Amino acid sequence: MASLQDIGVSAAINILSAFAFLVAFALLRLQPINDRVYFPKWYLKGIRGSPTRSGALVSKFVNMDFKTYFKFLNWMPAALSMPEAEITDHAGLDSAVFIRIYLLGLKIFIPITLLAFVVLVPVNWTGKTLEGIKNLTYSNIDKLSISNVPSGSNRSIGNVGRFTISEYDKLSCYFQVLVKNVPPDPDESISEHVEHFFCVNHPEHYLLHQVVYNANYLAKLVAKKKRLHNWLVYYQNKHERNPAQRPTTKTGLWGLWGNRVDAIGYYTAEIEKLTLEMHNGISLAQENVERERVTSDPKAKVPAAFVSFKTRWGAAVCAQTQQSSNPTIWLTEWAPEPRDVYWDNLAIPYVELSIRRLLMSVGLFFLIFFFMIPIAFVQSLANIEGIMKVLPFLKPLIEKKVVKSFIQGFLPGIALKIFLILLPTILMTMSRIEGFASLSSLERRSAEKYHMFIFVNVFLGSIVTGTAFQQLEKFVNEPSTEFTKTIGVSIPMKATFFMTYIMVDGWAGIAAEILRLVPLVMFHLKNTFLVKTEEDRERAMDPGCLDFATSEPRIQFYFLLGLVYSVITPVLLPFIVVFFAFSFMVFRHQVINVYDQKYESAAAFWPHVHRRVITGLIVAQLLLMGLFSTKGLAKSTSLLIAQPILTIWFHRFCKGRFESAFLKFPLQDAMVKDTLERATEPNLNLRTYLKDAYVHPVFKGGELERPVAMDEEESSPLVATKRKSSRSSRHDSETGSEAGVH
Amino acid sequence: MASLQDIGVSAAINILSAFAFLVAFALLRLQPINDRVYFPKWYLKGIRGSPTRSGALVSKFVNMDFKTYFKFLNWMPAALSMPEAEITDHAGLDSAVFIRIYLLGLKIFIPITLLAFVVLVPVNWTGKTLEGIKNLTYSNIDKLSISNVPSGSNRSIGNVGRFTISEYDKLSCYFQVLVKNVPPDPDESISEHVEHFFCVNHPEHYLLHQVVYNANYLAKLVAKKKRLHNWLVYYQNKHERNPAQRPTTKTGLWGLWGNRVDAIGYYTAEIEKLTLEMHNGISLAQENVERERVTSDPKAKVPAAFVSFKTRWGAAVCAQTQQSSNPTIWLTEWAPEPRDVYWDNLAIPYVELSIRRLLMSVGLFFLIFFFMIPIAFVQSLANIEGIMKVLPFLKPLIEKKVVKSFIQGFLPGIALKIFLILLPTILMTMSRIEGFASLSSLERRSAEKYHMFIFVNVFLGSIVTGTAFQQLEKFVNEPSTEFTKTIGVSIPMKATFFMTYIMVDGWAGIAAEILRLVPLVMFHLKNTFLVKTEEDRERAMDPGCLDFATSEPRIQFYFLLGLVYSVITPVLLPFIVVFFAFSFMVFRHQVINVYDQKYESAAAFWPHVHRRVITGLIVAQLLLMGLFSTKGLAKSTSLLIAQPILTIWFHRFCKGRFESAFLKFPLQDAMVKDTLERATEPNLNLRTYLKDAYVHPVFKGGELERPVAMDEEESSPLVATKRKSSRSSRHDSETGSEAGVH
Repeated sequence: MASLQDIGVSAAINILSAFAFLVAFALLRLQPINDRVYFPKWYLKGIRGSPTRSGALVSKFVNMDFKTYFKFLNWMPAALSMPEAEITDHAGLDSAVFIRIYLLGLKIFIPITLLAFVVLVPVNWTGKTLEGIKNLTYSNIDKLSISNVPSGSNRSIGNVGRFTISEYDKLSCYFQVLVKNVPPDPDESISEHVEHFFCVNHPEHYLLHQVVYNANYLAKLVAKKKRLHNWLVYYQNKHERNPAQRPTTKTGLWGLWGNRVDAIGYYTAEIEKLTLEMHNGISLAQENVERERVTSDPKAKVPAAFVSFKTRWGAAVCAQTQQSSNPTIWLTEWAPEPRDVYWDNLAIPYVELSIRRLLMSVGLFFLIFFFMIPIAFVQSLANIEGIMKVLPFLKPLIEKKVVKSFIQGFLPGIALKIFLILLPTILMTMSRIEGFASLSSLERRSAEKYHMFIFVNVFLGSIVTGTAFQQLEKFVNEPSTEFTKTIGVSIPMKATFFMTYIMVDGWAGIAAEILRLVPLVMFHLKNTFLVKTEEDRERAMDPGCLDFATSEPRIQFYFLLGLVYSVITPVLLPFIVVFFAFSFMVFRHQVINVYDQKYESAAAFWPHVHRRVITGLIVAQLLLMGLFSTKGLAKSTSLLIAQPILTIWFHRFCKGRFESAFLKFPLQDAMVKDTLERATEPNLNLRTYLKDAYVHPVFKGGELERPVAMDEEESSPLVATKRKSSRSSRHDSETGSEAGVH
Repeated sequence: MASLQDIGVSAAINILSAFAFLVAFALLRLQPINDRVYFPKWYLKGIRGSPTRSGALVSKFVNMDFKTYFKFLNWMPAALSMPEAEITDHAGLDSAVFIRIYLLGLKIFIPITLLAFVVLVPVNWTGKTLEGIKNLTYSNIDKLSISNVPSGSNRSIGNVGRFTISEYDKLSCYFQVLVKNVPPDPDESISEHVEHFFCVNHPEHYLLHQVVYNANYLAKLVAKKKRLHNWLVYYQNKHERNPAQRPTTKTGLWGLWGNRVDAIGYYTAEIEKLTLEMHNGISLAQENVERERVTSDPKAKVPAAFVSFKTRWGAAVCAQTQQSSNPTIWLTEWAPEPRDVYWDNLAIPYVELSIRRLLMSVGLFFLIFFFMIPIAFVQSLANIEGIMKVLPFLKPLIEKKVVKSFIQGFLPGIALKIFLILLPTILMTMSRIEGFASLSSLERRSAEKYHMFIFVNVFLGSIVTGTAFQQLEKFVNEPSTEFTKTIGVSIPMKATFFMTYIMVDGWAGIAAEILRLVPLVMFHLKNTFLVKTEEDRERAMDPGCLDFATSEPRIQFYFLLGLVYSVITPVLLPFIVVFFAFSFMVFRHQVINVYDQKYESAAAFWPHVHRRVITGLIVAQLLLMGLFSTKGLAKSTSLLIAQPILTIWFHRFCKGRFESAFLKFPLQDAMVKDTLERATEPNLNLRTYLKDAYVHPVFKGGELERPVAMDEEESSPLVATKRKSSRSSRHDSETGSEAGVH
């Protein structure tokens, strides 16, 4: 156990480094040259342009107004001053609710900390280890953790629930439903089949549908065209600046080999060629849609469609009901936001999905408990002898003493580090294989996996010695109470370790987040070497986004630590509170100024957050029971069993009470909105508005015409109302601005 | 462990007693006097009348046609010959599917038994305990139990699913939805509030609604009137037979005390008085409905209603969707069949329901693990000294040696026996407190509880020594693997015990079921002493019904035994197969000739049956793992872990694939039926048909007029179509015939 002095040193180092990061950030963000690194959100919103202040060239890059340096910490009040409703408007509901997780942390831990310091610390300080008193105080705290925490989170969930309902209005996807597993029909194409099914079964509400294209080939062509177009603009600019000399390029690899040709002419011709090919591709896709029953390529068939309804009520009904007596076909769900759709997973049949999930859960089990085995194997290979064998020409270098010791000290760690860096990607790939249809659900699923990994390998791994697999073996072969006892006993001894962890990961790490060192360096590198056109500069700007899949499990780890140590070592609590407060501020700033979310899921992650906080609470209660039973307090231990039971009950109660706000759209609300809209906008042409909402990203941005088949259903005799409409829909303008970002 | 001879003796005794029961049944059922005991179903259907064969008086009571005695076993082919579709028609879907549980047992255990006797028994017989061979055979059987059992039950579930869907048509409740937790409204009565809500939110589909009355007081009055009416008929009959003398009665208790008055006049007057009181009651109920916002009695408010829709599609939509953004109000579900409604539970608010369920699950835990404590307490009280102290005048009797030893030997057992007899009632009461709204769900819930009780106290209790609480303690304080090991090791030793159990409970018990000794005796007692009128005789007939809450857990126990012993002691399997085959025959006969189901739930219990069979399978697999690990086969044990995982996955797959057939009514099917009906019966007056479907039982049978308020909504300006209709609806005739039974 580290002494108080060790902790002090560690605290000093971390606080200093955090402070250094903050100062660096405060100075760097004032320089106009870094403007696109620290305020990209505003650029993307079109509110802020490139710095064009008149004056000396130097003031374009360095801020000469020294007065501003004195107020270098004023980003903090600025970050806190924006009201929540405005954040929702500015950055989306997801971001606003994500910040609320930190607020929830503060709401839970500030009262606990105060109470712990009023009650527990004096008792420990005076050294009275009288069982009776301890027992009494413990149960006081128990009351706290039962009654206070849930009621806090309860209120919070209620708030978020209402918040979500009132804010989700702005999203348009209320009219649309995603239909998966459309069964094959021998006589009809998928499009016809969908049309007929919904005309028959939702005759009064069905409006139109959009089939899903397998546009992978087209997507490749579009990317290529974009690249060529960029070169063309570059050479045109060059030519404009220097009209005397026509720029030339080589036709080979990277413009370095091959025949030298006139650059502008070459790229113009190439783009034309590609455009032709793309049109062929479109008619191919169109043919696939039209005649997919005769096509031989099974991959071209995507038995899914986005169905739009005339009213929100009709869409709500369709999304919540079962369509066919076979519950594995005609599966309906709320259509995710267009940007949120994960197009590749729309075509997986039910049985395959079921098998994939089984395999992935087995895979996850092995990943969590046996991940050390391949790493140890790599480590055993990557020793000095191995390297010398494979790369004998490095022998003289390696044999130098400094290099040798460096490799020996560093290599084993590197394999693990690389694995940990790759882990989120691995988990995301696993989630993709499981076949979820939206990016947001993929992220939620990955977060779940990552949370389990952290719980087993970081939390339990730090407390109990040995690998996760050894713990598992212990868990199976020991009495279940024995395991909680073992952990319960070692927990107090690990408090200082976790304090240091919080300071490194939670304090300095968050401060590093706001400094954005990697994007800063990358931006300037790109700006110097790669940026050829204004569009390139736009693309070199990397606003990043809130990465739910990795940050949420990290927050949950702090929740877990706080709840576990709230009774055992309350001294740890202030560290947690500082983490939550600091993160709250930093992420509020980042959400306002930096991050640009790729999609909007209407805070669908909140029930997951809630469930994991509750899980943390139950773990804390069980460990407390384990610790108590070793102190010979068997009686009070068996009374404590009521705690997890009540917590689980509370969780189920909350689930029943609030969860549906995130999953379902009640008919009453739908009807109210429908009626309201009919009254306020009687001439709204819904068809125009919804027609192009779910177009595969490659058809966005006007570079490609959508296949004609999409409009074809308008002439269907089954649909009564028929209106021709202009292409520029309200929705397009909402999502079109995103097309340039990715 | 009992020797082979002991088993033989036990088998002989049980087979003989089963055979004796069967012979007694075969002889008794041929006597006309017992006709109403053994064929009540046909009487209730109106197909069979009281025996009125001409001839000697004696032939009215005793069958003199001796030829029929030779064919005394022909009930067996008769029971088997009726096709399943006809049984569904005759006795309802519930009964038909219940019999299918036995069929499922046969389908699972006949192949297992054959395979076990081909592979396992020879291996054991030759005494080769070579681990290798044993291992091989075990894994053969494992393959069997994984692949064969699920695929069998899979097919079965599929069949039952389809079966249900195709047969459920006949029930009318497709148009109706039960709405619970109607929120209070300061300005409107519940009836108005329901009307307005559905007119607004389901404008195109809402037809009418029926509010729920708190008719407990009325129900009492109706029962009293029935009793008085019966006496009146009795005295009228008496007077007719002997017109000279007017019968008299006394006005006091049971007609034994008080003033002697003219019987017919007295009862006529009493009935008139009661009728007046009832009319007051109705107007009271009506007032409650009309003005429940001002009434001071909170019990009179029942915030629930049965809402009928114009189309099945509209009802399916309403039942499957969430109505309000607050998911604890306006809860909709499929309306249970009118006879199936449990009226007392329709008014429980969400939070209270949640708390009740928590309390009851805690209660169930204590009931299962600590039920021995109060029984032991009663036993300690009910000893001879205790009795002599409380009832000193019995002292001389008790001190006789025979009586004393009888009491000492018998009393302790009696307390336990009484508890076990009361147990189903206790469990049913607990389920009632949990607040389910239909009788069928109450029975399903009780079956679940009873199943747990049997599993812990009969199955584990027979295998492991000690009380359930001691087992629980062991389970908590031992490694989880150790517990399965303990049980796994003791299982083979208990095989003979379970064989005897199967013979007593499963063979002789089922034979006793068909003899119906208790109803037989009761019928003749009532017939001799109580029956005064023809109506009384009708009522003395007690057809009984399939008691799902107790019989299904019993069947599940046999499934569990069969699955557990299939690998360990396959000799037990034939006993199980005989049980299933014999029960199948007996219950088929009973369902055809005797039982009269109180309600019809469209086999909603099938998913529960399936889940419990799967649970049994998993228990068997875990115990097998425990047994294996003690034999030093650690490696194959850890491979066996795949079994339960695959089984659970299979269960989830089945759940997703088939369960919704029991819970939801897909829109496609609803639409098909709506369209069909519109084409075939364009003039069907749905309003007439549905208006009186959900009337509280006391208003049934024409003795009471329904409160006028019920028809009032027809004149509501919000409903466009307005048709007056005759009172005798199709539905009434369906359910009215039941009114006399209860």
